[in-house]
Amino acid sequence: MQQQPDKPTRQSKRKRNAGQALTKLLLDDQLDWCQPIYADAPVTPIDDDGVQAIHDASMTVLEDVGVLFLNDAALRVFDQHGCDVDWDSKRVRMDRAFVMEQLAKAPSHITVTPRNPDRALIFGGRYFNFGQVASPPNVMDLDQGRRIGTRADFQNFLKLAQAYNCIHFNCGYAVEPMDMHPSIRHLDGLFDMLTLTDKVVHAYALGTERIEDAMEMVRIGAGLTHEEFEEKPRMFTNINSTSPLKHDWPMLDGAMRMAARNQMVVVSPFTLAGAMAPVTLAGALTLQNAEGLAAIALLQAVRAGAPVIYGAFTSNVDMKTGAPAFGTPEFVRAMQISGQLARFYGLPLRASNANAANALDAQAVWESAFSLQGSCSGGANLIYHAAGWMEGGLSASFEKFVIDCEMLQQIIYAQRPITVDASTLALDAIAEVGPHGHFFGCDHTQQRYRDAFYTPLLSDWRNYETWLDDGGVWAHQRAQKQYKTVLNEYVAPPMDSGHRDQLADFVARRKAEGGAPTDF
Amino acid sequence: MQQQPDKPTRQSKRKRNAGQALTKLLLDDQLDWCQPIYADAPVTPIDDDGVQAIHDASMTVLEDVGVLFLNDAALRVFDQHGCDVDWDSKRVRMDRAFVMEQLAKAPSHITVTPRNPDRALIFGGRYFNFGQVASPPNVMDLDQGRRIGTRADFQNFLKLAQAYNCIHFNCGYAVEPMDMHPSIRHLDGLFDMLTLTDKVVHAYALGTERIEDAMEMVRIGAGLTHEEFEEKPRMFTNINSTSPLKHDWPMLDGAMRMAARNQMVVVSPFTLAGAMAPVTLAGALTLQNAEGLAAIALLQAVRAGAPVIYGAFTSNVDMKTGAPAFGTPEFVRAMQISGQLARFYGLPLRASNANAANALDAQAVWESAFSLQGSCSGGANLIYHAAGWMEGGLSASFEKFVIDCEMLQQIIYAQRPITVDASTLALDAIAEVGPHGHFFGCDHTQQRYRDAFYTPLLSDWRNYETWLDDGGVWAHQRAQKQYKTVLNEYVAPPMDSGHRDQLADFVARRKAEGGAPTDF
Repeated sequence: MQQQPDKPTRQSKRKRNAGQALTKLLLDDQLDWCQPIYADAPVTPIDDDGVQAIHDASMTVLEDVGVLFLNDAALRVFDQHGCDVDWDSKRVRMDRAFVMEQLAKAPSHITVTPRNPDRALIFGGRYFNFGQVASPPNVMDLDQGRRIGTRADFQNFLKLAQAYNCIHFNCGYAVEPMDMHPSIRHLDGLFDMLTLTDKVVHAYALGTERIEDAMEMVRIGAGLTHEEFEEKPRMFTNINSTSPLKHDWPMLDGAMRMAARNQMVVVSPFTLAGAMAPVTLAGALTLQNAEGLAAIALLQAVRAGAPVIYGAFTSNVDMKTGAPAFGTPEFVRAMQISGQLARFYGLPLRASNANAANALDAQAVWESAFSLQGSCSGGANLIYHAAGWMEGGLSASFEKFVIDCEMLQQIIYAQRPITVDASTLALDAIAEVGPHGHFFGCDHTQQRYRDAFYTPLLSDWRNYETWLDDGGVWAHQRAQKQYKTVLNEYVAPPMDSGHRDQLADFVARRKAEGGAPTDF
Repeated sequence: MQQQPDKPTRQSKRKRNAGQALTKLLLDDQLDWCQPIYADAPVTPIDDDGVQAIHDASMTVLEDVGVLFLNDAALRVFDQHGCDVDWDSKRVRMDRAFVMEQLAKAPSHITVTPRNPDRALIFGGRYFNFGQVASPPNVMDLDQGRRIGTRADFQNFLKLAQAYNCIHFNCGYAVEPMDMHPSIRHLDGLFDMLTLTDKVVHAYALGTERIEDAMEMVRIGAGLTHEEFEEKPRMFTNINSTSPLKHDWPMLDGAMRMAARNQMVVVSPFTLAGAMAPVTLAGALTLQNAEGLAAIALLQAVRAGAPVIYGAFTSNVDMKTGAPAFGTPEFVRAMQISGQLARFYGLPLRASNANAANALDAQAVWESAFSLQGSCSGGANLIYHAAGWMEGGLSASFEKFVIDCEMLQQIIYAQRPITVDASTLALDAIAEVGPHGHFFGCDHTQQRYRDAFYTPLLSDWRNYETWLDDGGVWAHQRAQKQYKTVLNEYVAPPMDSGHRDQLADFVARRKAEGGAPTDF
């Protein structure tokens, strides 16, 4: 049985692969752009008493041990709110009443609206969103192997992120464009992001000039007044603590500036159990929770109701070597318990698709599959690094991007509601076919077969002999073919030419002014 | 930081890889043999009304459409219980009162005790168990590629199944030993299984002689009287319906003989949506449910309380080619809903780790990872084909066996309870380290680091340069090294020499008698 849809589907002016399930080189069959929603309730590895115990322990850490805030503006905010600020050591001790009072102001759901309002995303509740890999210094592909990232690589990742509907937002530099001078990297980088994609963008909190430039560029790119820009979240940043118990100047500066203007901030302690955090899961999560909540409380004190995300990045290290590990059982459980904590505080959750593999091998996939499973079963609303991350974050891989998108699509698809009614129960079809024959030809099948099942991006379901005769191509090689074709066929999203010109003018002016300092 | 346990652990008389996390070639660090238990509640894609609707629809199928039972002994049982038996067509229609009356007799928990009682397994509730791949005609390895299976291959898989603690039972021929004549294959095959492993064994329901020989061999191998053999389940078989709505003679014969002697029967309709089952998930599950429950009712009528497992193998086909697909969103949801149905009837659930990949590529892993995730999040108690399956069941792969075991171990580990108490919350350690320093050296870490985290079988967490300098070995190549070393180091489990001799005598006698007929 070989059936073809009798009319072309969306996007499919180009000819389709005939007959057999050959590797898809284009994205005709990909899922539509959508805001996915979890049908499943989150997994909860610990009980309410356990959540309360981690909360209490975190509060004790904030009250008794305190957190370093290496930023005087942040210290002033804490001081004004009656926290115990040691100006010499920059250590802040805050009581739990203050923390909880601030957390109560944070929204449980955040809508971020980029320059194309059709790409607006909801973070919170059962809504979830995937962003592509961010920040590796290296790039990998099958043609050239592993090398330092360039602007051209970064632009290619942006084009892929735009083309694949399962990628909802940009997390930063998919690969660090090392051929751009750091003083102007943020200008050209965000210009690329705002012009090559129309999805939600991220800006790095790397000092005052960069974050201010970024907000201005997002505003200009969308043709907004300053008031319109601040009316709702238009972009986001992510900050990490320097574990244990320290927040550095540039990230605090950027986070406070973003929060003050109603832009979304993800607060993600990077608490590796056994290294910069306690070796026990409960202890590492206590540290994550304390570090994260301290910064979130600050941002609420800066602006009540500032849109913030509870970030989780607790994993473990290999105790023999100190090497970080991802997608481990510890990582899975940490993400799920982080979801319990985030919901305890009424905050959206950020998690990640991470792995430590050095090649596009089975390890890369099982660690990513388990990372995604932990993140999504934990109820994460924002999944960072969802496509393309390799090597513990030191490389971005084009082929891995496609492999991950296959998994992301399947996760989105599996969370669709399942209809059980007279039509789907198919009693008439079962009676019609009876104990003899098959369902290929019956009306019930004919009416539904086109959209009955998930259509994969990459899976090759042909039998062994056919697959071998056609070259015996492995999945990562099929991914290579696909991403190259998608790049060749890439079309930039429409953009108001006036906005684009103003954006280019802004970049030119700021470059002429010397960009941003590089001595941070 | 490079730390080594200061004394050898269990099994580790042999020297360990020094220092860095090199590929494990032996199983010193594998999880202990255990009976794993799900900590997580199962995922439930549909609500109670949906479960009731599938149940009602299945009952309507059994009442109005009926099922073919191509076995006169089965027809007599149905006839004796007042069912509507058409002797010409061999179609049986049974009303829901009869079905539910029979189902009520089935146990919710089944303990199967093999010749080594320490290997007894519980099927039911939150208990889960993994079996290795069963029944492919082909075998794959990196050395020789894909070829017809032999007894030597089959024996090697048995040795691996014995060596890896995450494999709880044998599902049949891990690869069909095609060099053994079908008339005596069951004799030599089960002899190998009973001597090379001491774990729970399976016998094929392929006609009267084979299943009777198998029960006798399991009895002799364990040194049991006939009464002791029947006292409790000692082994199991699996039967498949011929969808739609047909049960064939040999499987029914074997299942009834096993049930009559209190041995476990897994009833697994193979309902591929869009092909031999309706194209809708609810319809395919309705068919699965009707076919499965009809046979389970029969077995309860044969012997009240017979140990039976509700088998689920609903997946979908590629509607363009008819090729079966596994690990798809449809497969995941079908396993989870099957769990809801099995619990509705108070029966243990069987699921599978399946994929359709032709190579040890990313597809093989993501499809397997999703299959396992669907099976385990669905609450499956018995997971067939959990290690080594490739190509939609047409090949068994040695390297895939090891890759799968890595995933199985992680699933088992992740379901361990997580302790949240004063010790694990680590407040003293957090205060001791404070905002300066790290946790590597603190007492809290030193006391716990040896057993703090999951130790992988295969993951290589070294950095890229170190990994590359050491040959840049991919995970499936590491798996190759590992399985070969494990085979070289294999030691057969102890067996009473008298029992072994009697078993050999039985095999010799039955071979002399000509074995079993091959014209079934």
